[in-house]
Amino acid sequence: MAQGEQNLVNGNKAYAESFTQGNLALPPSQKYVVLTCMDARIDPTSAFGIPLGAAHVIRNAGASARDAFRSLVISQQLLDTTEVLVVKHTGCGMLTFDNAAARNIVAANKGEEAAKEVAELDFLTFPDLEQAVKDDVEWLKSRKIEEGITFTGWVYEVETGKARKVL
Amino acid sequence: MAQGEQNLVNGNKAYAESFTQGNLALPPSQKYVVLTCMDARIDPTSAFGIPLGAAHVIRNAGASARDAFRSLVISQQLLDTTEVLVVKHTGCGMLTFDNAAARNIVAANKGEEAAKEVAELDFLTFPDLEQAVKDDVEWLKSRKIEEGITFTGWVYEVETGKARKVL
Repeated sequence: MAQGEQNLVNGNKAYAESFTQGNLALPPSQKYVVLTCMDARIDPTSAFGIPLGAAHVIRNAGASARDAFRSLVISQQLLDTTEVLVVKHTGCGMLTFDNAAARNIVAANKGEEAAKEVAELDFLTFPDLEQAVKDDVEWLKSRKIEEGITFTGWVYEVETGKARKVL
Repeated sequence: MAQGEQNLVNGNKAYAESFTQGNLALPPSQKYVVLTCMDARIDPTSAFGIPLGAAHVIRNAGASARDAFRSLVISQQLLDTTEVLVVKHTGCGMLTFDNAAARNIVAANKGEEAAKEVAELDFLTFPDLEQAVKDDVEWLKSRKIEEGITFTGWVYEVETGKARKVL
């Protein structure tokens, strides 16, 4: 059994044995969404104080708003959430490469045929962390479909466990 | 201050005060990725036994592999993860509508101009839960770029807290 599967089997056994919240509703009870990075060093539930059932949590490489657009629209339009917290973080991998570098790595690791599968892919990297938070919030605010939604933008520090507000 | 922001400020203060894991490395220490849904009733860290720093966690509406493709490629090709757990769940909102219904809801709620912004959007809903787990794993396995990656597929039960393996 691979490591992740083993963690899931063991961890889930313990979790299910003491689980008491089987009656939570589908729509988030506190009507908000946290968009953050997939980074392994982030535990949104604990680090951002999210009660079970309270908020949608969307995670992708870099906490990209463009990449999360489908999920945000579903959250807001189908499940009535009205607040979005965009939380990027220090030490993010997305600060360290660009599209050309990513494609070169794929070609070197996996060959030209695999590289073709990402030839058109925008990896959505960014060179400046705080600017990326601002840009993503502004991009969302410029959508007609996001009218009436409240946005804030944050940086989480993986070195200290602290989150600070950017806008 | 809106509810989500208030939770983050209060929760993060407590979290940072007892935070001791500021030296974790960027690449996931246990080289795996969990792809699950943004659903508010799922706490992957606890329910799937993920140690801090061990695994990337990608979350979107429905735990869609297609939607997560960019993040998966980055996780695997840039940060050397080799195992993917796809975890969808009972009671998922993505079982309850389709593209046409979603667009009608947007048009009714926000008007025709907002609906235009999602006219081309595939909401990636699915009619059958276990089949969707299988389909997503098969779709990933069919990518050349995913060669050498280990996949398992799971259903998490929001009613019991239990996860069961599908494939």
